[in-house]
Amino acid sequence: MLQGRLFVLGLGPGDPDLMTVKAARMIAAAPVVAFFAKQGRKGHARSMVDGQMRHDVEELRLEYPFTTEVAVEDPRYLAGMNEFYEVCAERLRVPLQTGRDVTLLCEGDPFLYGSAMYLFDRLRTECHAEIVPGVPGMSGCWSRANLPMTHGDDVLSVLPGTLDEESLLACLKLCDAAVLIKVGRNLPKICRVLRAAGLFERAVYVERGTMEGEHIVKLAERKDGPAPYFSMVLVPGRRYAR
Amino acid sequence: MLQGRLFVLGLGPGDPDLMTVKAARMIAAAPVVAFFAKQGRKGHARSMVDGQMRHDVEELRLEYPFTTEVAVEDPRYLAGMNEFYEVCAERLRVPLQTGRDVTLLCEGDPFLYGSAMYLFDRLRTECHAEIVPGVPGMSGCWSRANLPMTHGDDVLSVLPGTLDEESLLACLKLCDAAVLIKVGRNLPKICRVLRAAGLFERAVYVERGTMEGEHIVKLAERKDGPAPYFSMVLVPGRRYAR
Repeated sequence: MLQGRLFVLGLGPGDPDLMTVKAARMIAAAPVVAFFAKQGRKGHARSMVDGQMRHDVEELRLEYPFTTEVAVEDPRYLAGMNEFYEVCAERLRVPLQTGRDVTLLCEGDPFLYGSAMYLFDRLRTECHAEIVPGVPGMSGCWSRANLPMTHGDDVLSVLPGTLDEESLLACLKLCDAAVLIKVGRNLPKICRVLRAAGLFERAVYVERGTMEGEHIVKLAERKDGPAPYFSMVLVPGRRYAR
Repeated sequence: MLQGRLFVLGLGPGDPDLMTVKAARMIAAAPVVAFFAKQGRKGHARSMVDGQMRHDVEELRLEYPFTTEVAVEDPRYLAGMNEFYEVCAERLRVPLQTGRDVTLLCEGDPFLYGSAMYLFDRLRTECHAEIVPGVPGMSGCWSRANLPMTHGDDVLSVLPGTLDEESLLACLKLCDAAVLIKVGRNLPKICRVLRAAGLFERAVYVERGTMEGEHIVKLAERKDGPAPYFSMVLVPGRRYAR
């Protein structure tokens, strides 16, 4: 077993004020902080903890190998990401081997579609690992949109916009409330499916929820134009429909 | 419009350390704090803020009219709860009318099956209302259970155990990961449905996640006996199955 411990911290939906008390305290004490970042960017998680870390903190920047030059459907994407996560795990093992605790930052809630899971999956049997949950991005979005999502016996489904049209429609027909994530260039498909399910008028589009540049609008009133990958479409449950 | 503002605060899954920085700050400053409680109990949300409120805080205890003496399926239940929420809204209007802000506490995340939504629904057009999201109970549970729930394109569904067997089975067949809530006396039904869906062996039972008395065990290894209403059953997504 590695002597250091791995802490995976959920940082919440974007507003640093929506971090948990526990995460804030652990960030202030962490000797080694790891975070994912896109090429040429500071890293969203890293920006959220600006000015909150120890002065002597060791930062491990884990830079994604692709941005958009390799499509998610391309077999090279999966292979490349797999190799990337192996390299990341190896980098985290270095401080862990010398008994230094590593704090891995994660936007939203780590176990809900978080990249941090891929490192947790690789390291969990080698060291003590602990997850600190965070407010999921979707909770931040529906709170800012003033949209009560699920009352009583409503079924809620979280649906990646990357799924095919038929799967999305089948899922939408069975649930009462839905969150469509990974929107980006899947937005036209999402709109078609919501129309087919009779839910288009009820849907709300949220971009950068809880953050600077937040934009919330009824999907039906949204102007055309590209949507960022991490925008969301929210469909509140049955009570809202009445 | 009422002069006071309504703040609905999500307190997270149970451990007070998993409250957000924003919620903790707002609780310390709130002149009026409202919370739901069961008859004869202190109230779970109220217990979570013990020692954190102003000394001159005005507390509004909103006591549920039923515990178990009227079944959820009984028409008297719905009528009684409706009347209860009307009375609660009326009690909140008193300070709001005099320009005092009211902070309504809510376990978990307010817009995810929270009782606070029923008051928000009634008051939202009468005053400025703001929601502060919290870590949902389910996030606390899957973090404590060390269960990465959703990778990649996994579909996640949140399913109330109060649904009928056929509906539950149809939903389980379409999703990759599932959270079964409102377990309680629905546990035998949930077990039958998970067996029918081939998911029983993968399911994990979590009771009092993140709290004192926490109990986490594979559902297949759980000893017989009653489950509390707010226990959960977690079924992690596809990657876990490989």
